[in-house]
Amino acid sequence: MNYGVLGTGMVGRAIASKLAELGHEVMMGSRQAGNEKAVAWAEGAGALANQGSFADAAGFGEVLVIATAGEASIEALQAAGVENLAGKVLIDVGNALDHSQTPPAIMASTQGSLGERIQGAFPDSRVVKTLNTVNAEVMVEPSLVPGAHTMFVCGDDEAAKTEVSELLQSFGWPAEDVIDLGDISSARGMEMYVGLWLRVWQATGTLRFNIKLITGED
Amino acid sequence: MNYGVLGTGMVGRAIASKLAELGHEVMMGSRQAGNEKAVAWAEGAGALANQGSFADAAGFGEVLVIATAGEASIEALQAAGVENLAGKVLIDVGNALDHSQTPPAIMASTQGSLGERIQGAFPDSRVVKTLNTVNAEVMVEPSLVPGAHTMFVCGDDEAAKTEVSELLQSFGWPAEDVIDLGDISSARGMEMYVGLWLRVWQATGTLRFNIKLITGED
Repeated sequence: MNYGVLGTGMVGRAIASKLAELGHEVMMGSRQAGNEKAVAWAEGAGALANQGSFADAAGFGEVLVIATAGEASIEALQAAGVENLAGKVLIDVGNALDHSQTPPAIMASTQGSLGERIQGAFPDSRVVKTLNTVNAEVMVEPSLVPGAHTMFVCGDDEAAKTEVSELLQSFGWPAEDVIDLGDISSARGMEMYVGLWLRVWQATGTLRFNIKLITGED
Repeated sequence: MNYGVLGTGMVGRAIASKLAELGHEVMMGSRQAGNEKAVAWAEGAGALANQGSFADAAGFGEVLVIATAGEASIEALQAAGVENLAGKVLIDVGNALDHSQTPPAIMASTQGSLGERIQGAFPDSRVVKTLNTVNAEVMVEPSLVPGAHTMFVCGDDEAAKTEVSELLQSFGWPAEDVIDLGDISSARGMEMYVGLWLRVWQATGTLRFNIKLITGED
């Protein structure tokens, strides 16, 4: 499978590297082809790795990952070109922050979320929200956190969620630990959770953590 | 120990009943002494149970639990009387909702929280935030969720947090599952989490769930 990964930050590089390790062809996209970080990544990531503009990467990928800073996602996807997104699974791993507030505010509430804004702006893409609830290295190496722990997915397209769940399994997330929260509006909860994630990080001093969802019998 | 529990809803009744079961004297407080739900609770809860106004309960309790709807907490505590709160451990278990929005918005962000507003309004009380991350029945019977799972606490007063952690242990929360997130500003994270809690409830159809925090080695 060919993947387009939009974004050259820690999250984009971690996911792109994992995909290449798994034998997929990957193009990392950035605002302009030739971006220094993308070139360095592509040189280090082997024969299956390439880089280009957002539009190059979106055109190349059969499945796309939007891994820019969340507040820049919509603009990056517009630059990628709506025709390059249509019909494709679009994995949104972002958390959007409002940096005009101190500390930055998480731009999600019980009324809306980044995942929904992306799905709304690109209605022909098949958005699946996932991975935003853990640090970049845990996203692609869940065994850094011992034992079973939970990865959430949500989205409006069932087949897209199935495909993404299989991708998560190839990353090391066991099928039974991938919890489907329903349609894309559940991105509200997944993104609000990051408020707790930040506090756990501060209190524990490690980025290598996650939560396990445990349910009882009624 | 004498406890004052402010609030006659599901959460207040669950906590007050557990405290009475554990052998504590408990007064349930409401806007007006003689509240129908409080009277019914006190009649059913045994010789250690009483009811009265918010001020009666706050005056009676050596430790106080504010268990009204979160958006009514400050007003209830004002009615309880600042002199009845001074120096006391005040356990805030609430989630404040803004019902002017649809669905109701959680009134917490990376900028502020109910726990902080209570501590700020009553600076001589010793506020500890806890229990807001699970359903009422799980609060007082954590074994309804199988295995180990996490209860967070936060607050500015270390001795108060120790006292509340011991109370949580008497409710059935093992000491190693009670995680101290630091000062009262961590209530932001604990309250934002409820956005995810709501989505998990919708997706799983059960209120008997919780999360376990798992950390790895750096």
